[in-house]
Amino acid sequence: MFAVGDSYKKEFCVSEAVYKGFINIFNDNNPLHTNDEFALSHGFKGKVMHGNILNGFLSYFIGEYLSTKDVIIHKQDIQFKNPVYLNDTVFFEANVSEVYTSVNAVEFKFQFKSKDLLVLAKGKIQIGILS
Amino acid sequence: MFAVGDSYKKEFCVSEAVYKGFINIFNDNNPLHTNDEFALSHGFKGKVMHGNILNGFLSYFIGEYLSTKDVIIHKQDIQFKNPVYLNDTVFFEANVSEVYTSVNAVEFKFQFKSKDLLVLAKGKIQIGILS
Repeated sequence: MFAVGDSYKKEFCVSEAVYKGFINIFNDNNPLHTNDEFALSHGFKGKVMHGNILNGFLSYFIGEYLSTKDVIIHKQDIQFKNPVYLNDTVFFEANVSEVYTSVNAVEFKFQFKSKDLLVLAKGKIQIGILS
Repeated sequence: MFAVGDSYKKEFCVSEAVYKGFINIFNDNNPLHTNDEFALSHGFKGKVMHGNILNGFLSYFIGEYLSTKDVIIHKQDIQFKNPVYLNDTVFFEANVSEVYTSVNAVEFKFQFKSKDLLVLAKGKIQIGILS
């Protein structure tokens, strides 16, 4: 079902609906995420989107984008390398990096890139295949 | 501002509003998360909440719950150990595990536990202190 090297690509947009929805649910109104002047004063181009919005996109990737629905996330990690701004489109790429047949688990390495191919975030996610 | 051993506790509820809001934003309608019968057939007690909802709670913890707002997440990892169900209250605990003074960074180890003290998820999160 999965083989090392299998690759996936998907675009996501950090739209106003995603941004405001995330704040409505999780109440993270930190000024870095909500106040352009605060973000500018710290060297950013404007308010910075919550990194965990990218983790929400990972949920979609695993839960909906794979060829099987019989999956569950075991563990994941992410490093945030560059800021994402409101209405940015982010380009997600993932590759199967390990297949653990004996325990029905699969590991993906992933990156989110900007339209200029800057790495915004990268990490790994391991899933189990439900039996 | 931060010292190794500093500890934090906070309760979060995976309410209907959080669950439905997460699905509305990220469109992860995987049957494990939306279909009780599917989840039961795989040995769970009912539909399992998205693990990345816990990462949204982490966003709140870092962005809003700390004593300073001048923070940004550098990286984080999480292992999902046991399922979270709709309307569960999860008990979050975090401790400062490392302080990297020279680079203005702080690492926390965290756990989410059930009311029965079962570990639901655990991991680490490293933040930068904005200068």
